[in-house]
Amino acid sequence: MPTSITYKYYMPTRVIVGKNCIIANSDIFKPLGKKALIVTGAQSAKRNGSEKDVTTALKAVGIDYLVYDKIMSNPTISCAYEGAKLAKDNKVDFIVGIGGGSPMDAGKAIALLAAQDIPEENLFSGQYENKVMPMVLVPTTAGTGSEVTQYSILTNDKAQTKTSIAADLLFPTVAFLDATYTEDLPLVTTINTAIDALSHAIEGMLSVRASTISDSLASESIRLIMDCVPDMLQAIKLEAEGRFRPEKREQLLEASCMAGMVIAQAGTTVVHSMGYSLTYFKDIDHGRTNGLLLGEYLRLVEKTQPNLTRRILKAMDLSDVDSFQELMNGLLGRREEVSSEEISQYSKITMRAKNIANCIVKPTEEDVREMFERSCMNDV
Amino acid sequence: MPTSITYKYYMPTRVIVGKNCIIANSDIFKPLGKKALIVTGAQSAKRNGSEKDVTTALKAVGIDYLVYDKIMSNPTISCAYEGAKLAKDNKVDFIVGIGGGSPMDAGKAIALLAAQDIPEENLFSGQYENKVMPMVLVPTTAGTGSEVTQYSILTNDKAQTKTSIAADLLFPTVAFLDATYTEDLPLVTTINTAIDALSHAIEGMLSVRASTISDSLASESIRLIMDCVPDMLQAIKLEAEGRFRPEKREQLLEASCMAGMVIAQAGTTVVHSMGYSLTYFKDIDHGRTNGLLLGEYLRLVEKTQPNLTRRILKAMDLSDVDSFQELMNGLLGRREEVSSEEISQYSKITMRAKNIANCIVKPTEEDVREMFERSCMNDV
Repeated sequence: MPTSITYKYYMPTRVIVGKNCIIANSDIFKPLGKKALIVTGAQSAKRNGSEKDVTTALKAVGIDYLVYDKIMSNPTISCAYEGAKLAKDNKVDFIVGIGGGSPMDAGKAIALLAAQDIPEENLFSGQYENKVMPMVLVPTTAGTGSEVTQYSILTNDKAQTKTSIAADLLFPTVAFLDATYTEDLPLVTTINTAIDALSHAIEGMLSVRASTISDSLASESIRLIMDCVPDMLQAIKLEAEGRFRPEKREQLLEASCMAGMVIAQAGTTVVHSMGYSLTYFKDIDHGRTNGLLLGEYLRLVEKTQPNLTRRILKAMDLSDVDSFQELMNGLLGRREEVSSEEISQYSKITMRAKNIANCIVKPTEEDVREMFERSCMNDV
Repeated sequence: MPTSITYKYYMPTRVIVGKNCIIANSDIFKPLGKKALIVTGAQSAKRNGSEKDVTTALKAVGIDYLVYDKIMSNPTISCAYEGAKLAKDNKVDFIVGIGGGSPMDAGKAIALLAAQDIPEENLFSGQYENKVMPMVLVPTTAGTGSEVTQYSILTNDKAQTKTSIAADLLFPTVAFLDATYTEDLPLVTTINTAIDALSHAIEGMLSVRASTISDSLASESIRLIMDCVPDMLQAIKLEAEGRFRPEKREQLLEASCMAGMVIAQAGTTVVHSMGYSLTYFKDIDHGRTNGLLLGEYLRLVEKTQPNLTRRILKAMDLSDVDSFQELMNGLLGRREEVSSEEISQYSKITMRAKNIANCIVKPTEEDVREMFERSCMNDV
């Protein structure tokens, strides 16, 4: 019996997609202010041409800028405060975040912290004034979807995990999607980020907040990513760097954006919470952690929600969870070792995460432990 | 060969879906101001409980209001100016539009005209200042999708057709979707509005601005509507008023909203332009005109874009355009008579419409004439 529907849809970011879209739409920067802070990593935005396109567009409309290119992988809280201080000291009006999830998430946190004083102990409280700097985001990987979400995920040493700032304020003003910047990504990054996007789409469908709208975006995102998987497996086999055809790059970038729109509505699940431990303690790439863990959560869901699992598998054109695991094994290669002691520690941390409440099937600590055990190699 | 993708996605309206969602979210009105103008028709909003729920919510948060309930079907330009004068004279801060497409579109035009002075000759120019009153919209039919679009469509006597104001300013602030208000709709309204929504979804896929995102929303919207069609045909057969099960009402309302999100991105096609003549001169209901005309445009598109037509038919689970026409015949009953002279006149007017440029297959005036001839009974 279908129950009465209740949900919200909100995603106010203006998304502009296409080759050369930044330069072609430079007027869009004009109303945002007179001075920008470009937030990015040390190298990739310079290599792939994205930073150049942004600075060209800013110059074209007479906007001054400075560059903060110190964002590391899994950015820290102090990195966000440092960037915000720079923004305030230099009186910038808006933020341009360029890169993968790390610079974009850092850029979003900086936009918040530069517009209002939030002491560190309140950073994840969700209680903020209604003030933020406008943000323009330019993804240069096809995974995070951060360009269309209200989340900024930072490394939280106090909690020994990654924690998200979640607030509608953090929806970017504009997101520019130009797949040109993703063309030179190494194969392993292409695969890990694609798995991240796939996980967003699937976890969105496994969320208590899933809706008709988010599910329709999720299904199409899954279809687009799965359509690229044969190319990835082929590239692994050939030990090629996997120069995908440009239209596949576009497809992955669209899919990751749509998956971002999904988690903006539905949020993520225990898969992300568990993965944060593997990233925090073992330095395993974020997208990869989702790929390691997702199959076992699908298996847990299948026990009580077989129809939902079937619907997700059908969107992937797979017959069962085992086939999904085989596919992941092909993409991930040898899995990392994690000891029983570590698993106990990670399981405890996982159970404290906010996303547990978001899961359509709520795992117990014992479930989490088992999922870790089955997802990683372990030396019992 | 796929070409490089170029498109924009923007739909900043906050959509809140569910039974009693207005009362449950009355706080949302608070930041919008101290006084509201409720824009609605003379009767239905009173009958179906929507106006009561809005006023209850406004009172709960201490907001004053007045009611402008003079909106007729296919509202005129002067009706919009009259409402705007009322809004200004009474110093209201925001607009609440309740009803089908007519009151919602009027409400949106009033929100614009109350915030800035636009002489009538510039009303459809698209050149406006960046000022508008906040709008809250409550659809009480499941068809128009106006609650999530940037369009306000008014009867334009000078051009002898309906013309749209199109501006990002017109995206509502909030849309409340509570299917309770649609439960008492007469069968013919349920059918005509469902056909309107179906046409939005399909026309969005036939637009030069169709994108992966809009197509995924369109496909799901089509699926949801088609799932309700057997109930409609059954109700016609039984001459019942077709009290649908509530979850079907919810499904239609979600589908019409998603189809609105589609045309917000992709716009409509020649089907709408042609239909406006049938409404303007023959007083045929808007949704019904789309149902009369859509099949013949699908046939025209099929000649040069067979794959696209097949994809749309597949989303409807239909094998060919003839099956679509049969289905429409079942829903529409006897078609209206239009004379050859009238068809000549309407075809000329149609060719001046903005949406012609939006069509993936651009019809000639002769194509338009033929589509009219085949879509209506005519006394050649």
